[in-house]
Amino acid sequence: MLEQLGINAKKAASSLASATTEEKNNALVKISKALVDNAEKIIDANKIDLENGRNAGLNQGLLDRLMLDEKRISDMADGCIQVSKLDDPCGKILETVTRPNGLVIKKVSCPIGVIGIIYEARPNVTADAAVLCLKSGNAVILRGGKEAINSNIAISEIMRDAIKDAGFDENCVQLVHDTSRDSSTELMQMKDYLDCLIPRGSKRLIKAVVEKSTVPVIETGSGNCHIYVDETADIDMAANIIFNAKTQRIGVCNACESLVIHSGIIDKALPVIKAKLDEKNVEIRGDKRAKAVCPDIKDATEEDFGTEYLDYIISVKTVDSLDEAIEHINKYSTGHSESIITEDKDNARKFMQLIDSSSVYHNASTRFTDGGEFGLGAEIGISTQKLHARGPMGLRELTTTKYLIFGDGQIR
Amino acid sequence: MLEQLGINAKKAASSLASATTEEKNNALVKISKALVDNAEKIIDANKIDLENGRNAGLNQGLLDRLMLDEKRISDMADGCIQVSKLDDPCGKILETVTRPNGLVIKKVSCPIGVIGIIYEARPNVTADAAVLCLKSGNAVILRGGKEAINSNIAISEIMRDAIKDAGFDENCVQLVHDTSRDSSTELMQMKDYLDCLIPRGSKRLIKAVVEKSTVPVIETGSGNCHIYVDETADIDMAANIIFNAKTQRIGVCNACESLVIHSGIIDKALPVIKAKLDEKNVEIRGDKRAKAVCPDIKDATEEDFGTEYLDYIISVKTVDSLDEAIEHINKYSTGHSESIITEDKDNARKFMQLIDSSSVYHNASTRFTDGGEFGLGAEIGISTQKLHARGPMGLRELTTTKYLIFGDGQIR
Repeated sequence: MLEQLGINAKKAASSLASATTEEKNNALVKISKALVDNAEKIIDANKIDLENGRNAGLNQGLLDRLMLDEKRISDMADGCIQVSKLDDPCGKILETVTRPNGLVIKKVSCPIGVIGIIYEARPNVTADAAVLCLKSGNAVILRGGKEAINSNIAISEIMRDAIKDAGFDENCVQLVHDTSRDSSTELMQMKDYLDCLIPRGSKRLIKAVVEKSTVPVIETGSGNCHIYVDETADIDMAANIIFNAKTQRIGVCNACESLVIHSGIIDKALPVIKAKLDEKNVEIRGDKRAKAVCPDIKDATEEDFGTEYLDYIISVKTVDSLDEAIEHINKYSTGHSESIITEDKDNARKFMQLIDSSSVYHNASTRFTDGGEFGLGAEIGISTQKLHARGPMGLRELTTTKYLIFGDGQIR
Repeated sequence: MLEQLGINAKKAASSLASATTEEKNNALVKISKALVDNAEKIIDANKIDLENGRNAGLNQGLLDRLMLDEKRISDMADGCIQVSKLDDPCGKILETVTRPNGLVIKKVSCPIGVIGIIYEARPNVTADAAVLCLKSGNAVILRGGKEAINSNIAISEIMRDAIKDAGFDENCVQLVHDTSRDSSTELMQMKDYLDCLIPRGSKRLIKAVVEKSTVPVIETGSGNCHIYVDETADIDMAANIIFNAKTQRIGVCNACESLVIHSGIIDKALPVIKAKLDEKNVEIRGDKRAKAVCPDIKDATEEDFGTEYLDYIISVKTVDSLDEAIEHINKYSTGHSESIITEDKDNARKFMQLIDSSSVYHNASTRFTDGGEFGLGAEIGISTQKLHARGPMGLRELTTTKYLIFGDGQIR
């Protein structure tokens, strides 16, 4: 039943492909204004979602993610303005080659076309994702969770009116109103209309999309992030970084979930790290050698090393060498972010070369893996796969390239 | 049953990730020599495949693709040397940013990791693909068609010995010996071990991989390529380019399958184009207006416009405007290669911007969409999807990137 949305999106994408930067920015400014002007309408719709959520027994965390107030709507509106100020990622000439036969081949950046976004209960994604797609010249089909459907309809209708008002086809942004599982599955199979599908949300959602989709997927993912304390680490620096990476915000994908510590430094390092983590009552689960150093920590099981806690819990693995650390991390990590704390530059270099993750740090917190912190200006997600985009994805990652070849009659 | 291959490949990939360019090139030279030295062994194995193929009633075209002689083995060996001379795509610093907090963020190119290649009856793919993967630092799991299994085993064993001899883990290159459909399906589901899957072969094979794979796929694809003859086209140039694009090699994905002609020039242009195509007895299937100009051509059905003939057949569609041409082409094309023949630069610009294909030409033959012709030095395939790689894929497209972040204790 979503086919008509696909047809509409393809048509809208075609008109967006020739839009100027000014035209696109103008639409973003209009969307921003419309969101603020219609805040009450959005809040009214959101109240219905909150009421339904309470009746359905959603927990406090989910209700909080679902909730929109003037501040959050104003943040969405500010986001539009920020994105309008970013560099247009389309139309960049990335390479020019002149071949011996006289053909001039230019590789240029251009919109991907039609992007599908499947997400869960956060209605702000509706505006954030639409705005990033619009700026990068892509039509978008949004499929949010049923918990936020009233809010999403309100936000998307306001955006569509603003887009139309800016002279664009309002189908640049479309929301799937049917929130049954069938609509989600259908979207994943719309290969004729969608060029790319980006799931945003829980591990379960992402897994389902990867397994069922025939549309190319950019997997944004979970982070079982490690910090390795090397034999020559500055212990105070290590403790500070670990404390930050574990506790500054526990529910995020770039939080540290597991420590790996060299046996040559664990006697000195672990008590200092533990003292710091105790400040926020972080539960430490260690292997035998870690327990020998700090007997009051809990036992780590094999399962712990593979767990993204998203909680005040951290695991500790003891190793005898850098190689063992690298092997352990590459086995258990989700390829998101890992850090080495060391004063040995050769070890840092080896770690950074061999760790198979999107972002590998030397002497810094894993919490920096973020579009804003990397200077991308905005972020549609963090890719933990290796094709197309890896790590924080900004506007540029929402473009593809094409070859333009200029001839004067060349034949082969 | 393929899990052990996955485990082996991951281990081999890790050792390849730290290999120097010289070490990798040395392995390629050894493979080249080994292929030539063991040509007889390969030919003997190939004879069994040919015999089996004849008994199974394979047609002449398939038997020809399957056949290996000294010349073809020598071509494979030359390919290794050529790839050894290409620039190493890994370890390039693509960007460096220093953030206000002092973090230095470098984006560097690196191997993808483990690549799976699923292909059909051409045993030369076994060597060609393995060599490109090796040079780009990737371990590869090859799954060729059952028709070529004896040839593939011979070639892969020779390569593995040479790789070992060069000091690498021979599991950098592994061949799936089981050619049942189950092994192919299992490979498509090996998400824990494979970072990327590249199908090479028929439309049916590629479709099956796209539908069944949970591993990210780079779709290499079919080409329903169009040439649009604009109102101001140089008619002789158009006829030459169309003749070349249609007939120089009919069985390839960048051959022209469909003409789109402006109604303002069709009276003059089509007879000239037809006269040229008649030289090779190309069957022309046109719409009503094309038939009005050249009554002896055949009728085109709707189905014709969506057909990749790979034969001496071409369809003709008449349009009244550039916009109509663009709409028609974007509807029927497979996103491979399209060309506009025009003397009007504005029309060329618009066509190149709005045609949604990997390679868009002005006044040149579509036959140039090829890694060698684009100057990439080698080619693993031509991507018709939009993520990761689009158009001809060389060594660079077999790499991904990672962020290396250098700090001195930064926390967030």
